[in-house]
Amino acid sequence: MLTLRRVLSVLFLTVVSMCAATASAQDVRRDIYFPDLPGYQTFVCDLHMHTVFSDGAVWPTVRVAECWRQGFDVMSITDHIEYQPKKDDIPTNHNRPFQLAEGDARARNLLLVRGTEITRDTPPGHFNAIFLDDINKLDTPEILDAIKAANDQGAFVFWNHQAWQGEEKGRWLDVHTTMYDNKWLHGMEVCNGESYYPTAHQWCLEKNLTMLGNSDIHDPDLRQQSLPDDHRTSTLVFASEKSVAAIKEALFAGRTAVWYKHQLIARREYLEPLFHAAVCVETPVVRSGKNVILQVRNTCHVPVNLVKTGGNGPAAISVPARSTAIVRFTTAETDTPLDLPYTVTNFLIAPGTGLPVVLRCN
Amino acid sequence: MLTLRRVLSVLFLTVVSMCAATASAQDVRRDIYFPDLPGYQTFVCDLHMHTVFSDGAVWPTVRVAECWRQGFDVMSITDHIEYQPKKDDIPTNHNRPFQLAEGDARARNLLLVRGTEITRDTPPGHFNAIFLDDINKLDTPEILDAIKAANDQGAFVFWNHQAWQGEEKGRWLDVHTTMYDNKWLHGMEVCNGESYYPTAHQWCLEKNLTMLGNSDIHDPDLRQQSLPDDHRTSTLVFASEKSVAAIKEALFAGRTAVWYKHQLIARREYLEPLFHAAVCVETPVVRSGKNVILQVRNTCHVPVNLVKTGGNGPAAISVPARSTAIVRFTTAETDTPLDLPYTVTNFLIAPGTGLPVVLRCN
Amino acid sequence: MLTLRRVLSVLFLTVVSMCAATASAQDVRRDIYFPDLPGYQTFVCDLHMHTVFSDGAVWPTVRVAECWRQGFDVMSITDHIEYQPKKDDIPTNHNRPFQLAEGDARARNLLLVRGTEITRDTPPGHFNAIFLDDINKLDTPEILDAIKAANDQGAFVFWNHQAWQGEEKGRWLDVHTTMYDNKWLHGMEVCNGESYYPTAHQWCLEKNLTMLGNSDIHDPDLRQQSLPDDHRTSTLVFASEKSVAAIKEALFAGRTAVWYKHQLIARREYLEPLFHAAVCVETPVVRSGKNVILQVRNTCHVPVNLVKTGGNGPAAISVPARSTAIVRFTTAETDTPLDLPYTVTNFLIAPGTGLPVVLRCN
Amino acid sequence: MLTLRRVLSVLFLTVVSMCAATASAQDVRRDIYFPDLPGYQTFVCDLHMHTVFSDGAVWPTVRVAECWRQGFDVMSITDHIEYQPKKDDIPTNHNRPFQLAEGDARARNLLLVRGTEITRDTPPGHFNAIFLDDINKLDTPEILDAIKAANDQGAFVFWNHQAWQGEEKGRWLDVHTTMYDNKWLHGMEVCNGESYYPTAHQWCLEKNLTMLGNSDIHDPDLRQQSLPDDHRTSTLVFASEKSVAAIKEALFAGRTAVWYKHQLIARREYLEPLFHAAVCVETPVVRSGKNVILQVRNTCHVPVNLVKTGGNGPAAISVPARSTAIVRFTTAETDTPLDLPYTVTNFLIAPGTGLPVVLRCN
Repeated sequence: MLTLRRVLSVLFLTVVSMCAATASAQDVRRDIYFPDLPGYQTFVCDLHMHTVFSDGAVWPTVRVAECWRQGFDVMSITDHIEYQPKKDDIPTNHNRPFQLAEGDARARNLLLVRGTEITRDTPPGHFNAIFLDDINKLDTPEILDAIKAANDQGAFVFWNHQAWQGEEKGRWLDVHTTMYDNKWLHGMEVCNGESYYPTAHQWCLEKNLTMLGNSDIHDPDLRQQSLPDDHRTSTLVFASEKSVAAIKEALFAGRTAVWYKHQLIARREYLEPLFHAAVCVETPVVRSGKNVILQVRNTCHVPVNLVKTGGNGPAAISVPARSTAIVRFTTAETDTPLDLPYTVTNFLIAPGTGLPVVLRCN
Repeated sequence: MLTLRRVLSVLFLTVVSMCAATASAQDVRRDIYFPDLPGYQTFVCDLHMHTVFSDGAVWPTVRVAECWRQGFDVMSITDHIEYQPKKDDIPTNHNRPFQLAEGDARARNLLLVRGTEITRDTPPGHFNAIFLDDINKLDTPEILDAIKAANDQGAFVFWNHQAWQGEEKGRWLDVHTTMYDNKWLHGMEVCNGESYYPTAHQWCLEKNLTMLGNSDIHDPDLRQQSLPDDHRTSTLVFASEKSVAAIKEALFAGRTAVWYKHQLIARREYLEPLFHAAVCVETPVVRSGKNVILQVRNTCHVPVNLVKTGGNGPAAISVPARSTAIVRFTTAETDTPLDLPYTVTNFLIAPGTGLPVVLRCN
Repeated sequence: MLTLRRVLSVLFLTVVSMCAATASAQDVRRDIYFPDLPGYQTFVCDLHMHTVFSDGAVWPTVRVAECWRQGFDVMSITDHIEYQPKKDDIPTNHNRPFQLAEGDARARNLLLVRGTEITRDTPPGHFNAIFLDDINKLDTPEILDAIKAANDQGAFVFWNHQAWQGEEKGRWLDVHTTMYDNKWLHGMEVCNGESYYPTAHQWCLEKNLTMLGNSDIHDPDLRQQSLPDDHRTSTLVFASEKSVAAIKEALFAGRTAVWYKHQLIARREYLEPLFHAAVCVETPVVRSGKNVILQVRNTCHVPVNLVKTGGNGPAAISVPARSTAIVRFTTAETDTPLDLPYTVTNFLIAPGTGLPVVLRCN
Repeated sequence: MLTLRRVLSVLFLTVVSMCAATASAQDVRRDIYFPDLPGYQTFVCDLHMHTVFSDGAVWPTVRVAECWRQGFDVMSITDHIEYQPKKDDIPTNHNRPFQLAEGDARARNLLLVRGTEITRDTPPGHFNAIFLDDINKLDTPEILDAIKAANDQGAFVFWNHQAWQGEEKGRWLDVHTTMYDNKWLHGMEVCNGESYYPTAHQWCLEKNLTMLGNSDIHDPDLRQQSLPDDHRTSTLVFASEKSVAAIKEALFAGRTAVWYKHQLIARREYLEPLFHAAVCVETPVVRSGKNVILQVRNTCHVPVNLVKTGGNGPAAISVPARSTAIVRFTTAETDTPLDLPYTVTNFLIAPGTGLPVVLRCN
């Protein structure tokens, strides 16, 4: 009796063990880890992507499934109004991608905002308009009319991939001044897919435009999950709550960071608290004579790469995403706490300028 | 000028991006995620491992590096007293592994407890004694004298891999009764390395012995980090704080769970709060007529596999570790909240018995 | 001078090293490794998949990119004739998926054959017809007319996922006998996606029908490459050369094997030479007294799992795909060569029957 | 009857499928793929590594298991003669690592050669001597006596990590000239672990010394297998057969290539045939008007990174290891074959100089 029971127990455990991974990979979501900021929650957003309704290769529901499983909170499908290469097979219907995706987005508790890409010549370049009610009204002969029509619907409008055809074709023209002066232009993509645009970065700082990073994805996204070193270019939005209205308010207020190739790009006022919410020196610090052994913990989804700017500590410290690194150095200083001044080279507060921080060792 | 600055910015970002992963892999630690229980913190422990000082293949410091990088909190090196196959090259020195490892353990903020494996014939089997002061005093001719010598030092003593040579050689004998009646035997390995011992599991429940799971590792551990489906067999200890004394108190009090091949094995009183601290149904649940769409989030390092025991919900739900699963079902019931009764088949409260739970959908 | 040159050399190597992986992942193909058979080359085929032109989620070119990067040689897009859930957005056009995909297939040197899925009720079930000239001619009211129309174009016709709605709905009916007797039915899917159909397997053996395995994929395929334990269900075809005509000849002649969840299913006459072309015992075998140490090398993309059927050798031997395993055993036999009789449990020559082999140790 | 049989068949397949990966990971070897050269076989070698018998952290048998599972053919354990930091626990015994490892090496069919590291001050630096009979005879007061004692045993002697303490301490001194003029010094490590030494590279070319790359590993190697982008620094040796004598002959003859961080470093006479044996343009090349579509196949374990040096073709082509890349370009040229001149930037024939090649498109 006991023997049979024992055999069955082992068998049970074996079968249980074998059945451990039966959830379909398509139906599993993995979180992306970024800390909230004081007063705001942090939401991961991709506000530029395409489907078969313009020059993309997938049905709109695929975009919802991708964003959900990779841990996104907010998304916008932004098919081209003017560029419709599949129209012989799929007659033009600008509002259709949103309609086809919204049921799935609701079921998966994702915020889906109606958007489009206004795609005229470069220059003046391409512009995304999101939070729209009816995309058809943007299908106008003149670009400024389209931009105005978007603003008439209360849209948030941003300039996409500014220098994608070179800086010459990405320069600031009268038409941009018109948009800007009318408050019709609210942001720029600092990063788009695999590209970073330092001029756009600089202009966002100078002209107080909101910084965005988006995937502009056309093909299927093969990523099962977002990994720190293999993720979609995206925008972190610091908003008061998870709602379309709150995301919109935050975008107009410029409370964003761009997540691009294991770097964060944002105004210092957002990067600084984000760094300190994500990274800490663990206590106790081990000191033995001149030797100091330090554990630096990074809880967020981007690595932190630190270069010493003076005083104590090793020349450089790298802490991978979601990891703790151990570092050793010697110092003649006996004070406690010990303050270590560093620059976070992959947290950019301006083109070529990392975030200055002080690591405090208690 | 602007152009040069732009080029330098891009170059800066490129180099920054390239330097992102410079921390040596050996010096990066990844967390293991299990929630704390009310009143207790959860610590991950491996209390059975070997080095070149008995029949293992690595220097003691390698064990510290392995446990640190894989996210362990507590460890014990437990080389055999009686089995010294390398003594021609390494003269016997029972206390030496601890001495060689303790500096590194302190530097890495790991709790290292002095331990050993009392290795006589099977039966009566092998026993680990941990929290020792001097291992040499356990090197006695009679096994009961060794067990008593361990207890004289206040050791926690447990029976290793009970049925490793079959149930016949793993049966409970008079010598075990002597240990038990003298309160010299405090726990048993329910799992050791790749093996589960249901008889040991049953005896722990019946005789109120502490359940343990350990690696008994001899070779180098190739794992860079602990993954849910590739981790060391180990013991979760629910202790009041991170200290040797608190870990010892918790082990004597039986507050443990065994983590083995993506399963948890423990008394119901620990598994139940651990499940509810780790797993929740996300709000809002989406209901549309009879259709219900549910997201079940699992924040811990072990998957949860649920089988329906009645009422509403799909027949089975699997949520991988650190993931959210989406499940869909239909119900005629219109009540809110909706209670879904399930068994967690990979959370074992007895041999062959999963943990019963109710998922509440608000 | 020397110093600058040295610095530049190191810098050069560093940059070279950094640029090593610049090919877009979408444009990299990885081979699938199966040996050729005497007189035939082995081609990996997926002959059942869907796009937005029926109930799939991707544009036809996505299917070409998937098959190419995963190492396939032959593919057929087989959208449903009768099931057109996206027709409000994409007006029905049965020949269109082939037309849209053929340019890419030619550029990537993939064989693309025009196919479709005849999708009536179950029973009698769904049937794929491939090597067609004009799919529109199969859009008939009666199923037998559609099957006949396919055969009029010289198509190869096979019964898909026989028991997908249970064995009752998958039973052999008069309509199947009519097809079979007219030689209008040439094969069956023994495996489709995640499912294996032993009845179909048995019927293929008894009725001399060609065995097929296909993906029936609807969503994007997230696999960057085909891995032994994460691959598309597919058909190996043993053909005289890489051409549409040769593939067609081989399918009509029944020269196939089904690759499904790290198993191969085929007639013994194909599995036996495939096993011996893929697996060998390396020389020299190390013998020392009664001890034998053996290295078994497996060069193909499927593991081999061997169970002893008598005589010498360990009870079981597992050799992962594209790997060599070391096995040790003792024997009283002193003869050379030593013959070890085994069954390959994951090479199925009939439902529940593995391939018998003899490993020869020289 | 049929039903039961069917159920059993499915169950059989399921269990077969579940048991697919039962070989212990420690007992699986994966090949490293490099082509043979005309007249020679290519062997992968690591000729510099440490154990607990000097300042390493593992038992000698661990080094054998590592090299075997990662696909190496030849290895040498080269513990320091003079640096014995563990001698209080492990009394000095220079020949012991070889003795402890040789049984395992023979069982696994690995060539193990007896070696040691002569470790005096830097300068003049450290030297490995391999193919020794008795290491104790090298334990002499004077370094030149040790080097001579090695040569008296017919050893192959090479200078390790030349500039590891900077170029100043790695300069060529009279003592090196003495060794060189006596033909006591036969090679240099161009790469050691994570470092490349361009000066050593240059000297090997100028002085006709054999180029080597070795791991100099001290800790356990966590790699289960050698991956193109995560492999041990090692030496490819082009030898007439797999034997100690043939490897020794090849080393003295200078027939080597260094495999370091996805690059190969060697004399052009070896790199050129190796490139052409590993890389080819697949036929047929697809041409349509001015458009050319090319598939470049790389069968070896190192990527190839090509930069155009003139004429036709894209500016750069990258083909990952063991992959095929597709490249597209336009040309006005109508000739066939089309010759594309490139430099392989990660195949170094001198410091800072890649291998020139011509890709022929038929």
